[in-house]
Amino acid sequence: MPDEDRIAARLETLWQIAHGPAGGADRPAFSAAEARAMLLVAGWAREAGLEPGVDRHGNLWALPPGWTGPLVSAGSHVDTVPDGGRYDGALGTVLGLELAHELRDGTAAGARPALLICAAEEAPRFGAGTIGSRLLVGTLPEDALEAMHDAGGTTAAQAKAAYLEALGELAGIEAPVGRMLAHAEIHVAQRRSLRELGIVTRVASPRRFEIDCRGEAGHSGEISMEERRDALAAAAELILAVEAAAQAEPRQTVATVGSIAVAPGAVSVIPSDARLALDVRAIASDSLARLDAEIRSRAAEIAARRQVTITVRLVRGGEPVALDPGLAQVALASAQQHGIAAVETWSGAGHDAQHLAALMPTLLLFVPLEGGESHTPQEGASQPGILNAALIACAALGTFRP
Amino acid sequence: MPDEDRIAARLETLWQIAHGPAGGADRPAFSAAEARAMLLVAGWAREAGLEPGVDRHGNLWALPPGWTGPLVSAGSHVDTVPDGGRYDGALGTVLGLELAHELRDGTAAGARPALLICAAEEAPRFGAGTIGSRLLVGTLPEDALEAMHDAGGTTAAQAKAAYLEALGELAGIEAPVGRMLAHAEIHVAQRRSLRELGIVTRVASPRRFEIDCRGEAGHSGEISMEERRDALAAAAELILAVEAAAQAEPRQTVATVGSIAVAPGAVSVIPSDARLALDVRAIASDSLARLDAEIRSRAAEIAARRQVTITVRLVRGGEPVALDPGLAQVALASAQQHGIAAVETWSGAGHDAQHLAALMPTLLLFVPLEGGESHTPQEGASQPGILNAALIACAALGTFRP
Repeated sequence: MPDEDRIAARLETLWQIAHGPAGGADRPAFSAAEARAMLLVAGWAREAGLEPGVDRHGNLWALPPGWTGPLVSAGSHVDTVPDGGRYDGALGTVLGLELAHELRDGTAAGARPALLICAAEEAPRFGAGTIGSRLLVGTLPEDALEAMHDAGGTTAAQAKAAYLEALGELAGIEAPVGRMLAHAEIHVAQRRSLRELGIVTRVASPRRFEIDCRGEAGHSGEISMEERRDALAAAAELILAVEAAAQAEPRQTVATVGSIAVAPGAVSVIPSDARLALDVRAIASDSLARLDAEIRSRAAEIAARRQVTITVRLVRGGEPVALDPGLAQVALASAQQHGIAAVETWSGAGHDAQHLAALMPTLLLFVPLEGGESHTPQEGASQPGILNAALIACAALGTFRP
Repeated sequence: MPDEDRIAARLETLWQIAHGPAGGADRPAFSAAEARAMLLVAGWAREAGLEPGVDRHGNLWALPPGWTGPLVSAGSHVDTVPDGGRYDGALGTVLGLELAHELRDGTAAGARPALLICAAEEAPRFGAGTIGSRLLVGTLPEDALEAMHDAGGTTAAQAKAAYLEALGELAGIEAPVGRMLAHAEIHVAQRRSLRELGIVTRVASPRRFEIDCRGEAGHSGEISMEERRDALAAAAELILAVEAAAQAEPRQTVATVGSIAVAPGAVSVIPSDARLALDVRAIASDSLARLDAEIRSRAAEIAARRQVTITVRLVRGGEPVALDPGLAQVALASAQQHGIAAVETWSGAGHDAQHLAALMPTLLLFVPLEGGESHTPQEGASQPGILNAALIACAALGTFRP
C-alpha cells in the first residue's frame, strides 16, 4: 500500500523549496529550484533501492541497479508555474516513488519499475513547455533551446547548462527507452468538472495562431464611422467568430484569444493594427480541422467586408494524441474491480505523457481537483483521490502486457 | 493683401525649429521648442508694430502699443504633436500676423487687431490638450497641472515653469479679455472630405470613458466554451455594440475604442480582465446623450448575459460647443461676395477656439487638407486655400459688429 504519511511529507518538502509573491510554489523550468527538487527526488529514489541518473536532456531517471531487462516507469515533473500549487507535477513525482516501491518485485510482464521525472515541463519561463520530454522523444531539436529565452534574456540552452551543472553529483546516463514497456503519469486534474478518477484516453495539443488585423489609423473625431477601416473593430468581430466556431464543436474543442495588442493605442486614434494570440485545442482532428477552416473563412469574410487585411499565421502546429487504449482499459477494469469510481476522459492541457506516448504505451491518470484552481497556491487534491490514483496506476502497470 | 512669400518663409522657419524621427515638426507642449517658436512669433509681431507679452498661463499676446480700446484677435498655437505637420497651429499663427497687418487701421466696430497664440494646445505630451486656452478661460484649474505628467515624469506645472523661464525676455501681461470683441483661428482641416473653405459652426468635445470588463481567468485547454466568463469576448461584443450605436447616429457622431488592455494576457489563459478606452464625440448634445445611453444599456445587457461585470466610467465630460453664429454668417457672406467656395461645417477635433468662444465671439476657419494626413509630416495645404482663409477671416473680423 502507498504510504500516506510519506506522500504528504514529500509533497511538503517539495512545496517548501521556494515560494512566489503569492505564497505558491516557485520552481521555474531549468532553475536552481528545479535542480534542488530533482536532487531531493534522487535521494528518495535511493531510499527505494533505485539508482538515480540524469540523461543529457536533464530528465531524472532512477533505475533498478544491475537490471538490464524490461522496465515500467512512473513519474511526472518537479518544476512549477510562478506561484503554482502543491500538487501539479509534485504529486505524480512522489507517487512515482510509491509505485516503484509497490512494484519492486516486478510486473506480470517481467518488468522492473523505474522513475522518470521530466525536466522543464511548465511553459511560463520560456514560452514553451514539456521541454525535457520533447527533447527525449526528439520532437524538439536541441538547438531550438538557443532561440528560447526568459524575460531576463537567459536562453533555455544557458539555463539548461546551469541546471545540469547543479545536478553534477548525479551520474549522466543514457535514457533506457529501448527497454520501456509502459509509463504512467498521475496528475492533478485542471478542470473542476472532473469529479472521479480520470483515465485519459486523448490529449489535445494546442495549435497556436498569431492573427494580424491591419486597417488605417485616423483622428477619432474627424473620420466618420462609414469611412473607417478600424483594425480593432475587425478584431472584435473575429474574436466573436472564433468563439462561435468553437461553441459549434464538441465540448472538448476550445478556442481562446488570450491576448490582444493594438497600435497606435491612443484613445483619440482609430486603431490601425490589432494582433491577436489564438489558442485552439481539440481531442479530435476533424474538429480541429473544421475549426481552423471556419476561423480562416470568417477572417477572410470580415477582411473583405471591412476593407482591412487579416493574416492568420500558424505559429505552432498540434494534433491531438491518443494514449494507449490497452493500458487505459486495464486501468478502467482495475478501477471497477476495486470499486473505485473512474471515467474515461481527455486532457485539454499538455503533459509529458502525450509526448512519451510516442516511445511506449503511456497511462495518464487525473486526480480530481479540490480547493482552489489549478496553477494557483490553493490547488488541492483529496487523500482518497490520491490513493485511488496510486492504486490504479500500480495495478495497471503491474498487470499490463503489451 | 496677405504676403504669400512672408507666410511661406515664416512657416519654413517654424518648421525648421526641431524635427522628430520621421522628419516632422517636433515642438511638444511647454517645451523649449515651443518657447523658441513663441519668441520667433513675438519678433514677427514687433515687425507688425505690435507689442508682445505673455500672460501667466503662457499664452502669447501681441497688442497695439498704447491702445486701450476694443480689440479683435487672431492666432492659433505653435506646439505640435510628435512628428507633426508644417501647418497645424503654425498656419493660424502666421496668418494671425497677416491679419494684424491687414486690419492695422481698425475694424468697422472700432477695434484694433491683436495676436493671441495659445500655449500647449496638443495633447500627446500630457494626455490633455488646449491647456493654455483652458487655463485662460478658467475651465482648467491651475493646480490640475500638478497632476499631469509626461512619459518622463515631468509634470505639466514643471514644464510650464521652465517654458515661462525661457520666455523671460517677454513682458508679463494681464490677458486683455475684457476688451476683446472677437477672435479668429484659421486651422488646416483634419479630414480629407472637406474640399472647400470650412466655416465651423459647431465643435465636438470628446467625452472619454474607461470601461472595465471583468470575468474569470482559466486554462484555455480545460475550461469548456460554455463554462467561460471571458472578459475579452465580452469586450469584443461591446466594441461592436459601440460601433453600431455610433453608426445609427448622424455622421458627425463618432465613437472609437482606441486602446484595449487584457489580463493575464497569456495565449493559454482565458482573459479575466479587459480595459477599454472609449472616445465619443458629437456636435449635437441629444446625439451624444443617446449614444451614451445606448452604450451603457448594451454594456449592462452583455454583462448580464455573459455573467461578467462591466463598469463604464466617464473620465472626461464634454459637450459640443456652438461658435458665434453672427460671426460665421459674416464669414459666409464675405465668401459669397468674394466668389470663394465655402461651406458651414463642424470640427470633430478640439481647438483653442472652442474654449475662447466662452470669452468672446469666435470664428474658426478650416483650410482644406492637401497631401498627407493631418498630424503627419506630409500634412499639406494649398496656397489658394490659405489665402482664401486669410481673406475671409480678415473680412469677417474687419466688418463684424457684435
